[in-house]
Amino acid sequence: MRLPKKGRKRMKALDYPQPVQELIASLKKLPGIGSRGAERLALWLLQGGRSTGRELASALVAAADSAGRCPECGFFSLEGQRCAACADPERDRRMFCVVEQPTDVLPVERCGVYRGLYHCLGGKLSPLDGTMPEDLSVEPLLRRVHETSGCEVILAMGSDVEGEATALYLAETLALLPCTVTRLAQGMPAGAGLGHADAVTLMRAMEGRKGVL
Amino acid sequence: MRLPKKGRKRMKALDYPQPVQELIASLKKLPGIGSRGAERLALWLLQGGRSTGRELASALVAAADSAGRCPECGFFSLEGQRCAACADPERDRRMFCVVEQPTDVLPVERCGVYRGLYHCLGGKLSPLDGTMPEDLSVEPLLRRVHETSGCEVILAMGSDVEGEATALYLAETLALLPCTVTRLAQGMPAGAGLGHADAVTLMRAMEGRKGVL
Repeated sequence: MRLPKKGRKRMKALDYPQPVQELIASLKKLPGIGSRGAERLALWLLQGGRSTGRELASALVAAADSAGRCPECGFFSLEGQRCAACADPERDRRMFCVVEQPTDVLPVERCGVYRGLYHCLGGKLSPLDGTMPEDLSVEPLLRRVHETSGCEVILAMGSDVEGEATALYLAETLALLPCTVTRLAQGMPAGAGLGHADAVTLMRAMEGRKGVL
Repeated sequence: MRLPKKGRKRMKALDYPQPVQELIASLKKLPGIGSRGAERLALWLLQGGRSTGRELASALVAAADSAGRCPECGFFSLEGQRCAACADPERDRRMFCVVEQPTDVLPVERCGVYRGLYHCLGGKLSPLDGTMPEDLSVEPLLRRVHETSGCEVILAMGSDVEGEATALYLAETLALLPCTVTRLAQGMPAGAGLGHADAVTLMRAMEGRKGVL
């Protein structure tokens, strides 16, 4: 094979056509998709006939156009409308499950035992990242609780340091209002052996121990 | 917490709004993206403001609209145009590197020592899958080789059974034409120890051994 010799004029580097390169660059911005993955996705989309990519494109535009946030709780909804939870007359309107992000709603929903409403804070307190109470949807939560005397507020933040701090802050703030404030139980995850549990989890599981029967 | 009681009317299951569900379904069709991954991507696209999703959508449409296949070699090109390799006057037009898929071109290109043209077969012979020579871009290859007397054809199919069969078929078909036919060397992959090489690889590395200096 004729190899390139030193001093020979450098050949122009071959690459995908410009629109394909731009598609790869766009896909690479997605979380968890690297250079190789983006290339693979782009070529799959182009090889699968024109309809595959177009279908995804129109789903993207439709979702961006019509998906909004519920004005009451902050979960995903159709633009300008209340979400399916807030609009559901079957739900217990005197329970608020407070979560960090709208993406935390369906995990709670899927556990199958909660029938109340939600409230998405939009984050958690984090002085290091500069997230203060006024950056979260705290005022709207206080208003909802204020308007629903005797309600229960379940603090369902994560059990990391920021989640704990946020829960503590909310518990103190809500103490002035006529409501019960609870926090998700902490302890051993389902199906886990003691050998795999970290010290903090075990400590909390120990502190939260319950009588049997 | 008030748990749902047996016999109580089933609450309507909460889910994302319809357009978001459709976006998740579209993303789930991508290779290597499962249910959880699709949900994560969709929510990321929607949380990142409207522009993120729209940008990806327009990149998809632009790529689907304008990307085509090179009429000479079958690599990706702008619709109706020759690809960057075939259009490059610097390249050696008397060498054809025959690959299975257009996606195999850039890996060869990136190895940095090849300066010729490409030819994408569009697959490999596979009687089990019903892929016969007439399903591959063999006729156009024969025409290109016929028009380029004294050229070299490098068979760069994979070294699996179908790749080998395709290479053998092409070698026999090209034997009638005025060209040199070569096949990529087979042997130890770079950086691999003998302990990790399979028997076939070692056998081929042994058969292909070369004198040192």
